[in-house]
Amino acid sequence: MATDTANSSVAGDLRAPITPEGRTMVDLLTGVLPQIRSEAGDNDRDGTFPVEVFGQLAKLGLMGATVPTALGGLGVHRLYDVAVALMRLAQADASTALALHVQLSRGLTLTYEWLHGSPPVRALAERLLRAMATGEAAVCGALKDAPGVVTELTADGSGGWLLNGRKILVSMAPIGTHFFVHAQRRDADGNVLLSVPIVRRDAPGLTVGTHWDGLGMRASGTLDVSFHDCPVAADHVLDRGPAGARRDAVLAGQTVSSITMLGIYAGVAQAARDLAVEMCARRRSQPAAAVLALVAGIDTRLYTLRAVAGTALLNADLLAADLTGDLDERGRGMMTPFQYAKMTVNELAPAVVDDCLSLVGGQAYAGQHPLARLYRDVRAGGFMQPYSYVDGVDYLSGQALGANRDNDYMSVRALRSPTPAGER
Amino acid sequence: MATDTANSSVAGDLRAPITPEGRTMVDLLTGVLPQIRSEAGDNDRDGTFPVEVFGQLAKLGLMGATVPTALGGLGVHRLYDVAVALMRLAQADASTALALHVQLSRGLTLTYEWLHGSPPVRALAERLLRAMATGEAAVCGALKDAPGVVTELTADGSGGWLLNGRKILVSMAPIGTHFFVHAQRRDADGNVLLSVPIVRRDAPGLTVGTHWDGLGMRASGTLDVSFHDCPVAADHVLDRGPAGARRDAVLAGQTVSSITMLGIYAGVAQAARDLAVEMCARRRSQPAAAVLALVAGIDTRLYTLRAVAGTALLNADLLAADLTGDLDERGRGMMTPFQYAKMTVNELAPAVVDDCLSLVGGQAYAGQHPLARLYRDVRAGGFMQPYSYVDGVDYLSGQALGANRDNDYMSVRALRSPTPAGER
Amino acid sequence: MATDTANSSVAGDLRAPITPEGRTMVDLLTGVLPQIRSEAGDNDRDGTFPVEVFGQLAKLGLMGATVPTALGGLGVHRLYDVAVALMRLAQADASTALALHVQLSRGLTLTYEWLHGSPPVRALAERLLRAMATGEAAVCGALKDAPGVVTELTADGSGGWLLNGRKILVSMAPIGTHFFVHAQRRDADGNVLLSVPIVRRDAPGLTVGTHWDGLGMRASGTLDVSFHDCPVAADHVLDRGPAGARRDAVLAGQTVSSITMLGIYAGVAQAARDLAVEMCARRRSQPAAAVLALVAGIDTRLYTLRAVAGTALLNADLLAADLTGDLDERGRGMMTPFQYAKMTVNELAPAVVDDCLSLVGGQAYAGQHPLARLYRDVRAGGFMQPYSYVDGVDYLSGQALGANRDNDYMSVRALRSPTPAGER
Amino acid sequence: MATDTANSSVAGDLRAPITPEGRTMVDLLTGVLPQIRSEAGDNDRDGTFPVEVFGQLAKLGLMGATVPTALGGLGVHRLYDVAVALMRLAQADASTALALHVQLSRGLTLTYEWLHGSPPVRALAERLLRAMATGEAAVCGALKDAPGVVTELTADGSGGWLLNGRKILVSMAPIGTHFFVHAQRRDADGNVLLSVPIVRRDAPGLTVGTHWDGLGMRASGTLDVSFHDCPVAADHVLDRGPAGARRDAVLAGQTVSSITMLGIYAGVAQAARDLAVEMCARRRSQPAAAVLALVAGIDTRLYTLRAVAGTALLNADLLAADLTGDLDERGRGMMTPFQYAKMTVNELAPAVVDDCLSLVGGQAYAGQHPLARLYRDVRAGGFMQPYSYVDGVDYLSGQALGANRDNDYMSVRALRSPTPAGER
Repeated sequence: MATDTANSSVAGDLRAPITPEGRTMVDLLTGVLPQIRSEAGDNDRDGTFPVEVFGQLAKLGLMGATVPTALGGLGVHRLYDVAVALMRLAQADASTALALHVQLSRGLTLTYEWLHGSPPVRALAERLLRAMATGEAAVCGALKDAPGVVTELTADGSGGWLLNGRKILVSMAPIGTHFFVHAQRRDADGNVLLSVPIVRRDAPGLTVGTHWDGLGMRASGTLDVSFHDCPVAADHVLDRGPAGARRDAVLAGQTVSSITMLGIYAGVAQAARDLAVEMCARRRSQPAAAVLALVAGIDTRLYTLRAVAGTALLNADLLAADLTGDLDERGRGMMTPFQYAKMTVNELAPAVVDDCLSLVGGQAYAGQHPLARLYRDVRAGGFMQPYSYVDGVDYLSGQALGANRDNDYMSVRALRSPTPAGER
Repeated sequence: MATDTANSSVAGDLRAPITPEGRTMVDLLTGVLPQIRSEAGDNDRDGTFPVEVFGQLAKLGLMGATVPTALGGLGVHRLYDVAVALMRLAQADASTALALHVQLSRGLTLTYEWLHGSPPVRALAERLLRAMATGEAAVCGALKDAPGVVTELTADGSGGWLLNGRKILVSMAPIGTHFFVHAQRRDADGNVLLSVPIVRRDAPGLTVGTHWDGLGMRASGTLDVSFHDCPVAADHVLDRGPAGARRDAVLAGQTVSSITMLGIYAGVAQAARDLAVEMCARRRSQPAAAVLALVAGIDTRLYTLRAVAGTALLNADLLAADLTGDLDERGRGMMTPFQYAKMTVNELAPAVVDDCLSLVGGQAYAGQHPLARLYRDVRAGGFMQPYSYVDGVDYLSGQALGANRDNDYMSVRALRSPTPAGER
Repeated sequence: MATDTANSSVAGDLRAPITPEGRTMVDLLTGVLPQIRSEAGDNDRDGTFPVEVFGQLAKLGLMGATVPTALGGLGVHRLYDVAVALMRLAQADASTALALHVQLSRGLTLTYEWLHGSPPVRALAERLLRAMATGEAAVCGALKDAPGVVTELTADGSGGWLLNGRKILVSMAPIGTHFFVHAQRRDADGNVLLSVPIVRRDAPGLTVGTHWDGLGMRASGTLDVSFHDCPVAADHVLDRGPAGARRDAVLAGQTVSSITMLGIYAGVAQAARDLAVEMCARRRSQPAAAVLALVAGIDTRLYTLRAVAGTALLNADLLAADLTGDLDERGRGMMTPFQYAKMTVNELAPAVVDDCLSLVGGQAYAGQHPLARLYRDVRAGGFMQPYSYVDGVDYLSGQALGANRDNDYMSVRALRSPTPAGER
Repeated sequence: MATDTANSSVAGDLRAPITPEGRTMVDLLTGVLPQIRSEAGDNDRDGTFPVEVFGQLAKLGLMGATVPTALGGLGVHRLYDVAVALMRLAQADASTALALHVQLSRGLTLTYEWLHGSPPVRALAERLLRAMATGEAAVCGALKDAPGVVTELTADGSGGWLLNGRKILVSMAPIGTHFFVHAQRRDADGNVLLSVPIVRRDAPGLTVGTHWDGLGMRASGTLDVSFHDCPVAADHVLDRGPAGARRDAVLAGQTVSSITMLGIYAGVAQAARDLAVEMCARRRSQPAAAVLALVAGIDTRLYTLRAVAGTALLNADLLAADLTGDLDERGRGMMTPFQYAKMTVNELAPAVVDDCLSLVGGQAYAGQHPLARLYRDVRAGGFMQPYSYVDGVDYLSGQALGANRDNDYMSVRALRSPTPAGER
């Protein structure tokens, strides 16, 4: 890894990347932002995934931004820098940022597998990372089972596996070439084992849905993916251990996978703020009292959410780089501040957007006004992995009060009966 | 008017109507609610105004609910009761409630004109009220000028008027038969006079827009209406006096026109609450801690918003019925509690809906989930007439601190330069 | 009871009493307010109970305000009116209002016993009510056991009882002549029975503490009372049935005992508001933007808290007067809106006071500034009976989700092990 | 300055100092904390300044913690580290932290004068800094004029000055040996010049008050100081330029003087949190739902306030160290994030303390309970220099909207008529 020479000038407010690699990524992105911004409204209205934009991102090497330089990527390795890039992107279009996040966080977690995994996992990770760097591979994560469904691996009788089930809310799916599918399998004693088969899009039995009508994030290519006796080779399954193992060490990887999304909601809030404050600044008349109070409040909350996200990201970077201590403690040490930040971002980003609507007035209520889109997009934050507000209260109060509980939400879900159809 | 025998049992929380006429209105509405509820999702998605539903409301006499019985109406005369009815309706579909509100509040203000206006105005009011009672007339209000436009009356040279301009956000427009258009004209000295020409839909030069793509309230038939040399007879213009006259007495009529909309947002919050709490109650597992805290908070805020709206409505009814004192004081005495209630409802109703999304979880983020619609509909409250949050701060702080200001927002707007295109 | 002829003019915002008796009480109080207001600062600083003021209240008949006229009292019977009176009083001094509340709510609950109790209870209630009307009796409630203590009745072997234990937070204790002590006793099978012995101050073994150093409400005469083999006659014990009986009917009496305290916190907020807004109105310079926003927010929240308290009080009055239906349902029907209102008042009253400090500026931080007192007094609201925020969440979510639980907090406490010393 | 070798491990959440000097300061403080903590309650009750504690701090060199090592101090030069130390101290006693802050921030600003001032100022600064390092000098700031008073310098006729006026809210005054007095003088043309005479405690005509009865921060030695024809030598007056000069460069010094106080309120919130959460963790029973929600919310807000304060401090340190660019821009660049952080800390710290009272329950309402003290202490944050909430809205909205205004609050005050007695 490169030395972080720029480190001494970090203020932690997501203003700029820390590392040279981060700056390169942001510079490359900057060139594509005008196009992304100009298409955002139409893509939102129609629920269209911007395939062409992702083609350009691939050409620029941005689909491999978090792939190590040794494997052909840009080598961005700081979560902080990824979040800064996603914030810039989300200021133009949050849906695009949400989809790109999938690829960037996969780059980070696969790099970890490449460095620390078993030999076959390292080989698999290397192949995928190299393909991500060239833009050939777009790797989706499929976490959430459809209501009433348990996605499962069963032995195919000849050393491989068959995958059956259905996943919902898989972002970037329209261009996904590989899917990391969170599945269960059972050992001889009936214990549930958490497994992640990696399935190619052209695998027999895999079907990607065609349309998702979301309240917001409508251009993020968030689709259902189903598996019907879909064959998976034995060396394409990552083992995540038994459900219920209570290894808080896994919280580290879950943090890496999700924490950079804080940048997306910071970007949504920033976009709303810029739009509303610029409109107020253009008005010729003396601003009303409430306008001044709202503007001061918006900027205060925006800085606060950037600061809390930035601080949690710096913390995660520090701990991610240090594998010398207790790994369970490291996992909690990464996840807990992440959840503090997520709780606050999920409260403040919608509040900022809401006040921006009040500043702009009735025209912001038109369906295709950018603020109307931001109002819908920003609400997605509360549903991002891990945790929702409800689950976050359990996790954080458990940490404070020393509760004895399973902090791995994938494990908890696996051990729960499937959600009945009609709930999620 | 009927004696309000039921008055002694009012708790002011919008649970039930106070008067027998109010109960009749609610009972009649109740029969139509299942149909309205079942169509709400589709109408929202397509932005379709439910013409057929309004046909049924007319058949039931509900388009004349607030018309005096002497003129063929149901004789509902308490603002409180109208708000209760709109709340019930909004629980099924907020867009329909917003559109019906237009007709119901027109019935109330026209009844006032019929009782207290000059002879020609009384005659005009009687004709309109009788037509509303039969369902023949649907009377829209056209308040807000399009950006950059001033809607104006000019003399046609033969004792009548020509109307030119464009209005936006006219609800119930698809079935509107008459439009109350808030316009300006100038006297010989160039002073701005506020006038309300009443224009029939078939008047030459009047054009009703065809589509409005709103963030929410998409089935409310909220359209643009334009006027091009549209002729208006002299006795079809209501005189509202000179702009800048600072007659706080007009706040009474503005309160009557708008205060019952509080019921709409109470209904939206109630619908969200019922949906979310019922889902939680159905779940078999022990609710998470945050679920209990959210549920208690939702019910607390819902009761609070119902109580503050109900209290302001009871106050408005008391003062509306009493014309014996200082009319300026009466105007402020009606408007000020209304604005307190509006500020609180505009804060609490969206907060309730938001927490309901948190309770229900990710499925509520699907575009056609009822909560996604409620999340969009409820935000309209902040833009309802008078006042927005920004203007409300000026009005209420002015009342508290004894500021010397024009409290008539129609007058203030008329004396302001037109909003540039691009702002509203 | 008098007919509530004034009922039709109720707006429910605690502005004025509803009944003639209520108006009499408020008029009588008004004369004493200047003295109370002028002593409030000194009494707060020194923690002095205003014995002389209570002498005057007694002379005016106000210690018997809620005693029926047939028994020599003023006959105030509406909870709403009592709350209005306590609000006025709290605007002058919250501590005095808290102490008087004890007597007034005792008058209401004893009137119920007098009307509906068994013959011996009716006789006892009549004697006490007559003595309250003359000002001879000041009747305190002793609810809360000292940490680690269970206050218990044991048989004295000759048909009477001996009381042992210690109570904390007994308000109006310096002048208390009788104490309603919430105690436990056990039947032959060891079941816990809830009992309320009524003990005279001069009873052997009863000791009233001398000083309480509270954060606020320092002049409310809130003291410890201990009992050491204190004899109680058999006919001086009110039977409250077995702990754990789950009779929600008792919630009615608990509502009557406590709901009028909402007026106290409305009064504290109103006092802070008047002080701060009047200071802002006196300043000659143009108010800063944030001053206008704060003032509008303060008045909005103050109206809201008055409305929600008023609405819950009207509801309680309606149900209190009606014993014809299911008494458990009546109990919940009174308690639930009371708790909604309490939750909101406990949130809004401190928020109003806090914003008033911001309006007034640094001088409000001086220890003897009235706002500094109000800042300390208002925080007591969160600790008033039933329920605290924490318990209120359990009660209200239980109501919403249909939980099967014991809603009687006295019963729950009795069945819990005693709080360890060091906790309360 | 020492190289900040530890810099790469900063997460910005105020957990630990960044520099070795900062760590030394915190280590030295740690030894005194038990004594400070044990005396805090009594000193608060009696309003006693802990003279003996400050003697110990002096012995340990902590009165010179921010004095450069070259002048005998500990050489702490990062605002971040000072804030961390004040946070630790405030966890034991906020009053002591507030008083020590005076000395520490004086060390920082005098070091700037020593490095960048004119030769006589450098000499003066060096003498004072050396005396602070030995503990001989305790240097107070006297900023706020008493109501109705303007503290002024007038020529004494022989090249020196006479100081007259009265200052309020001077912390650490009981042991103050020197006072930096913010005064006005007028030039020949009548223009107001901002000046800071440095006056020794034993100067003729200087009187230090004896008692201050504050709502909180009662042991901070916050007193009035008056000046009656108090002589000041010409070379003991720092020139701050003409009022109204609009040099935003001065915002840098104002930031340095005040930003570390954010640590104090972080410490108050942390102390309340630790106390309340530890009590909850000790309870044997299953925590109520609202307890879990409160605990999660408290920890979330505490982390957020630490992060936003830490981020603003890191930003101020970065800009403080860089004098190469536009100095006005640097001033705003330091002040604006500081104010964002101050707004948020002033909102979140009281909210944390308040929720801790709810967690602990009624016992926290006892006057001498630590939480009752923290509830009073924490409210001081809103009144700290610059700016109050009201002034902060003007400053921050001015920054956002490009308003043309004087951002120097000392200048604004000087040009305003004196506050009438009765206001502050």
